[in-house]
Amino acid sequence: MSKGFFITVEGGEGAGKTTVLDQIEHQLKQDGRDVIRTREPGGIRIAEQIRTVILDVNHTEMDSRTEALLYAAARRQHLVEKVIPALNEGKIVLCDRFIDSSLAYQGYARKIGFNEVKEINEFAIEGHLPDLTLFFDVDPVIGMSRINADYNREVNRLDQEKLEFHERVREGYSKVMTVYRDRIIKIDANQPIELVFTAAMNVINQFVESRTL
Amino acid sequence: MSKGFFITVEGGEGAGKTTVLDQIEHQLKQDGRDVIRTREPGGIRIAEQIRTVILDVNHTEMDSRTEALLYAAARRQHLVEKVIPALNEGKIVLCDRFIDSSLAYQGYARKIGFNEVKEINEFAIEGHLPDLTLFFDVDPVIGMSRINADYNREVNRLDQEKLEFHERVREGYSKVMTVYRDRIIKIDANQPIELVFTAAMNVINQFVESRTL
Repeated sequence: MSKGFFITVEGGEGAGKTTVLDQIEHQLKQDGRDVIRTREPGGIRIAEQIRTVILDVNHTEMDSRTEALLYAAARRQHLVEKVIPALNEGKIVLCDRFIDSSLAYQGYARKIGFNEVKEINEFAIEGHLPDLTLFFDVDPVIGMSRINADYNREVNRLDQEKLEFHERVREGYSKVMTVYRDRIIKIDANQPIELVFTAAMNVINQFVESRTL
Repeated sequence: MSKGFFITVEGGEGAGKTTVLDQIEHQLKQDGRDVIRTREPGGIRIAEQIRTVILDVNHTEMDSRTEALLYAAARRQHLVEKVIPALNEGKIVLCDRFIDSSLAYQGYARKIGFNEVKEINEFAIEGHLPDLTLFFDVDPVIGMSRINADYNREVNRLDQEKLEFHERVREGYSKVMTVYRDRIIKIDANQPIELVFTAAMNVINQFVESRTL
């Protein structure tokens, strides 16, 4: 039985990940692919509870290392309960954010230390890296303006961070790309969303076709 | 200003940690020491929430690496919010379980890997190891019989584990002692509780006096 593909999408706030993932999921299904769309905590009970602790806006006193460990814990549980079983069934797993978010946000932008955050996440994922990662690279000014225009979206603690922080996140992703250059493809997410989708879809189709031939 | 002392007590289920810590705390206060007694999660809101997730008896599906990361996260927050500030005020901090519990339980007995659990915990504690650790070494048969005689105590998920598991925990603590031989003193906890208390109190008094002279 063929193993599936683990595809993750990464990027700063307002890069268009959610919108484009909707379109990618729709397109892949139309093309007859067996797709599962997820994001941490992905409906996994334990991981949902962990995420509630992380995103509670009252938790301004949370230490940044505590937060990094909680993200790693939620990642682990979601991976074991949802991602790995789907891959074993041969599905394409589309995941909104994974290890690279922790490296860019906690490791680099929050200055915990890139390698230390990499270590605890490697403990969490036990070698289960994505097969392909799309990095939606967006100028934080454009990203934040997209978020502020979207009144339906709930503002969480991360959204409240300053633009300066998002600049550091973007630098963090650049560093992630130098570490994992084989599996990460950068997509220009400053373009209109339709063009971001087209670029992302091309990369995914090429990848899936190259692996299934 | 003098820095305080960070003293931890470790051991398997039914080793008498709680009872003896009550007596040690009482004695140290009578001797005029500035003492704070704690255990993870220690009333720290975030750590309490994490512990609720860990100890929920319905969570039989929790992955052992998820659990180890959650313990490390709760440890971090409790250390930063409660232990370090107390040490900076010159207090003696008495803590029921710390890093060695994770090494013996998760790393060794649950077979995640001693060194890997050590790594994530070193990330969590950032060098803040205890100054002194008392390891209450008890034969699991004696330990479990003490627990079963105590009807007032709530039975949690860990209590439900088999005796065989507690044998492995004890072996795990032996391994911990070989790694951190400088800070850990073994106390025979098969003795009647009064004698365990006397032995523990002697070690603590000697330690505190040697450091304050």
